[in-house]
Amino acid sequence: MKQILSILVENQSGVLSRISGLFSRRGYNIESLAVGITEDKTLSRMTIVIDGDSHTAEQVEKQLNKLIDVIKVRRIPQSDLIQRELILLKVHAGQNERPNIVNICEIMGAKIADITTTTMTIELSDTPERVELMVELLRPFSIREMVRTGMVALQTGGGTISGAKKPS
Amino acid sequence: MKQILSILVENQSGVLSRISGLFSRRGYNIESLAVGITEDKTLSRMTIVIDGDSHTAEQVEKQLNKLIDVIKVRRIPQSDLIQRELILLKVHAGQNERPNIVNICEIMGAKIADITTTTMTIELSDTPERVELMVELLRPFSIREMVRTGMVALQTGGGTISGAKKPS
Repeated sequence: MKQILSILVENQSGVLSRISGLFSRRGYNIESLAVGITEDKTLSRMTIVIDGDSHTAEQVEKQLNKLIDVIKVRRIPQSDLIQRELILLKVHAGQNERPNIVNICEIMGAKIADITTTTMTIELSDTPERVELMVELLRPFSIREMVRTGMVALQTGGGTISGAKKPS
Repeated sequence: MKQILSILVENQSGVLSRISGLFSRRGYNIESLAVGITEDKTLSRMTIVIDGDSHTAEQVEKQLNKLIDVIKVRRIPQSDLIQRELILLKVHAGQNERPNIVNICEIMGAKIADITTTTMTIELSDTPERVELMVELLRPFSIREMVRTGMVALQTGGGTISGAKKPS
């Protein structure tokens, strides 16, 4: 089962190394990781997805809380989540394939980011499941290259992840 | 100046730790990092943005090429890039603020991912500059929480990043 951790950290050199070192020493494979700046430029928010049970996630949470650069850790239940991922895909698209690809993009709500006489680059932000579906839909057109961001998430409703404080 | 590295790595426990360790030992601060799976499930693609000159990026590239988990490294010139980032923003939105926020979303091409009587959660994938602009536009409405993925990039035109091989 997937476990999702949202971690607020100091935006400093070495933080990522200490956090990823913690996962690697314990043999937890990070399935996806996204790091970006936040409202406060001195802080970054990491969203880490690991494959494991809730006991594993609890252990990871405890270990993370011991790191000095970690401000807050929150395990987010998947049921309460707005999960989004971004993908860029470059597919082979000659004039015969183009109408079909444009059609798929319209159905899926994807944007066309670039086009040449032989290729199209497509951009989609959606849930991980729908991003996966888009990959399947475009696979018959020969995917030349793709890049995904890894998942980010916020709680549904009015609550915030940052609402939870680091235990002192 | 920003330097963008696209790195194809083995999808294994410890890879992220070794790569981020390399950056941290040399004191390079990673501005943004995105890791996601690729066409080939055994491989991940990392997009790393660092703040530095092209000499720094060249050094990093050389060091990365020495790591056994690294399949390919490519520095991408910013002029040839399709750069995209994803942001989720939760803003305070009572019934007085809602029409203005919906208006901004329409202008910016953002989607509304969730809504309550007092908040709205907004989703935008765009260039880092336009993501920054969206944050500025929504700031007056009081941002409760936000999360960004870090940037991913593909080359414009028909060429692929993977086209470049790791020097042996």
